[in-house]
Amino acid sequence: MNALGIDIGGSAVKAGVVASNGSILAKSSVSLPEGKGHLPEPTIQAAVQAAQEALHLAESKGLAVVHAGVGVPGIVDAKNGRVIASANLPGLAGLPLAEILSKALQLQVKLANDANAAALGEAHFGTNGKLDSLVLFTLGTGIGGGIVIDGKIVTGHHGYAAELGHMRIEMSQPRPCGCGRWGCLEAYAGNKSIVKRAHEALAEDWKKSSCLHQPAENPKFSAEQVFDAAKLGDPLATRLVEETALALAVGAVNMIHALDPQLVLFAGGMTAAGEDFLELINSFARDLTIQGVSLENRIRFATLGAEAGLLGAAGLGMG
Amino acid sequence: MNALGIDIGGSAVKAGVVASNGSILAKSSVSLPEGKGHLPEPTIQAAVQAAQEALHLAESKGLAVVHAGVGVPGIVDAKNGRVIASANLPGLAGLPLAEILSKALQLQVKLANDANAAALGEAHFGTNGKLDSLVLFTLGTGIGGGIVIDGKIVTGHHGYAAELGHMRIEMSQPRPCGCGRWGCLEAYAGNKSIVKRAHEALAEDWKKSSCLHQPAENPKFSAEQVFDAAKLGDPLATRLVEETALALAVGAVNMIHALDPQLVLFAGGMTAAGEDFLELINSFARDLTIQGVSLENRIRFATLGAEAGLLGAAGLGMG
Repeated sequence: MNALGIDIGGSAVKAGVVASNGSILAKSSVSLPEGKGHLPEPTIQAAVQAAQEALHLAESKGLAVVHAGVGVPGIVDAKNGRVIASANLPGLAGLPLAEILSKALQLQVKLANDANAAALGEAHFGTNGKLDSLVLFTLGTGIGGGIVIDGKIVTGHHGYAAELGHMRIEMSQPRPCGCGRWGCLEAYAGNKSIVKRAHEALAEDWKKSSCLHQPAENPKFSAEQVFDAAKLGDPLATRLVEETALALAVGAVNMIHALDPQLVLFAGGMTAAGEDFLELINSFARDLTIQGVSLENRIRFATLGAEAGLLGAAGLGMG
Repeated sequence: MNALGIDIGGSAVKAGVVASNGSILAKSSVSLPEGKGHLPEPTIQAAVQAAQEALHLAESKGLAVVHAGVGVPGIVDAKNGRVIASANLPGLAGLPLAEILSKALQLQVKLANDANAAALGEAHFGTNGKLDSLVLFTLGTGIGGGIVIDGKIVTGHHGYAAELGHMRIEMSQPRPCGCGRWGCLEAYAGNKSIVKRAHEALAEDWKKSSCLHQPAENPKFSAEQVFDAAKLGDPLATRLVEETALALAVGAVNMIHALDPQLVLFAGGMTAAGEDFLELINSFARDLTIQGVSLENRIRFATLGAEAGLLGAAGLGMG
């Protein structure tokens, strides 16, 4: 059974017709006009256009589609197919988006938060195998996530489950978080926080022992550069990467203790740091896990990359 | 549809026939012989006896029962009805307990961890109303819990979900936990930890300003006495109670951010501290919650007390 997946992002809408084995049979992408996120129409038009292009392409190959899923960055009322709020696309707030797209496309449409959809994509189609339960941490400027239990997205009672970046992991000396609160996981392991922590560490590096002093003066200085410097053996960068890995291990183990999922996956740019970084997270996690709970390679990187949201949206349609 | 609930505890087995509205129609309790937890037979015999007594009583009232559920303190493989491990009743480890009780009682029997069953009991039959999703923290010597999503227990992939006491909430100055690790919620808000924190605080109270110095010398000094002293305005006790409330608020909010459950409930002896303590937890929680997430009286006390496990086990049978 093929399904259409629509992944509405901050800058583009991707749509694809996906087979039940997860292969993408037809695909399209439409850019969103800049600065129009406060309006509903441009986003809806782009979504409909991308979807129709993918559907026409599928049709030309003789493929039939009746179900669709759509992932949106924001809080959604999955049951009623309605967007509640969206920081990046505020124009969608309050819209019965599933119904709107359903009418425009003449398909049954289900709605999910984009990170939640990505978790479903990884659970259904990732190369980690078909997963019954999964916690996904999406690592970017901030930290988000998605939770799958019994093969289904955990949407939460109000639609905002899996705000995993705002799990509090520090009480006595909490770092300020972008959310306005303190001690959140994101305040330690979000890309923006890593850059901030690097600046703080460099300010205390009187001996200028780190190679990051010069790069850090560039306004485009990034977490990626911290990871690169750690790979070259820079001690300050190494400490920052270790602290990041520890924070992520606490996040992963807290969710393992709470939900005992089949796997915990990390997705996003930081996974480019590679297997050594994953092993570092796992080594901390082993020390953090209570007796009787085996980690057995349960903390891994996600495998679908940028396609996770599209595939998960299609998976939503299939479910 | 009536169902039989069996609640296997560390010192007794309680059994009851429960109506679909949660009223207990027939009930029995059988003590477990002391020091026999390492053997399977005494526990099984007590469970069968308690169940049969409750069933006979129900039968004498003309009530029919075909389904049963059993709650066990330990890690269970719910799918296969097998006990994996039990600290208090190690004799049950490895047993297909659901099948054993099913044969003995001629009923269909489902198995769950006892705190998980209690969560189901609160979700189905608690006076907080029928709950679709719920996170229950059981506060005692240690801290355990249960999670219900979509009206069903989250058992986890290996059967040990909801180890909520071992959520790590402190990194930089973590207290040691009974589990051998550091910074767990239980290390701040478990009864044993509260007593330990009281002893530490008293050792630093040079001016002997607290009324707890004398009671604390008694080996039976308890967390309850700390709460009582706080009610009387003792400043040291008040600080300890506030720190406990903060730790519990972090635990509750971390689960709200992760799962967005309908309610978070606290059960156990500490709820005797009353509404003021609950309001203290809620006031901290409001400060900890990210924007857009409303607490709206979502953190409450559980309402079924010691019957939660029995009712939840019966609810398991009904499900």
